[in-house]
Amino acid sequence: MSTNADMRGLLESGIPFAARTGLKAVKLDRENIELLMPLTPNINHIGIMYAGALFTLGEMMGGAVALVYLFEHSLIPIVKSFSIKFVKPGTTDITTSYAMSAEDVKRIIAECEEKGKADYSIQLELKDKTGLVVAVTDGLYQVRPQKK
Amino acid sequence: MSTNADMRGLLESGIPFAARTGLKAVKLDRENIELLMPLTPNINHIGIMYAGALFTLGEMMGGAVALVYLFEHSLIPIVKSFSIKFVKPGTTDITTSYAMSAEDVKRIIAECEEKGKADYSIQLELKDKTGLVVAVTDGLYQVRPQKK
Repeated sequence: MSTNADMRGLLESGIPFAARTGLKAVKLDRENIELLMPLTPNINHIGIMYAGALFTLGEMMGGAVALVYLFEHSLIPIVKSFSIKFVKPGTTDITTSYAMSAEDVKRIIAECEEKGKADYSIQLELKDKTGLVVAVTDGLYQVRPQKK
Repeated sequence: MSTNADMRGLLESGIPFAARTGLKAVKLDRENIELLMPLTPNINHIGIMYAGALFTLGEMMGGAVALVYLFEHSLIPIVKSFSIKFVKPGTTDITTSYAMSAEDVKRIIAECEEKGKADYSIQLELKDKTGLVVAVTDGLYQVRPQKK
């Protein structure tokens, strides 16, 4: 895992469930991570984006954060809890972006070295192509060193 | 929408996202609704059920409840918010069951007639085939009369 293409492949295809949604890793830089969920394959019974696709978009940010900032330290994430509030109907492709501070990265790595695990939480706004917030999310994740 | 087979078709195939997970409506009776999420198409990066499949299993109960108890009154559901706590790894097919009380059904129908909408919340335990709780969920839904 050293190239951006490797990370994109893992995020977009590593979990079959996520791959089937058409999730795209638009940007995977330490300065900014941006993920996109396409509308068309994910419409629901009333023609807007299904709640589970919005959940997946938000939830996968935890994995993207682990890949971009923590994978080089062989730390593997799981999600512990997640809440999502649906604010407006999602009627276009939906995006979300996030950047983790250098202080947070440092704290997580140090905590993993000391205690064998570390938690981090991620709050997101999921936006349509006009910038309208369609959902807000709050996810709690835990990383642990990869088993050898 | 009068037969059990019609409801099963809508739940398992009505939303392409849910259909791709392989979600099954095991039971759709007023006495008890049971939904099942299969493991195999929904494994994640560490070989257990992906969080989004557990979300979908829990979230779709809101739709199943609307179909079983409220669709004959032409009430259509949306989900307003949803939280999920991941308790144990999901390593088998996962099921969840729920029944709405006659009092709740009556209250929702009356509220829709009076105010044009009604909320209901559903708390669930998602269990593996040994009965172990792998996740708990809390969803808030709203139904409104179908637009003519």
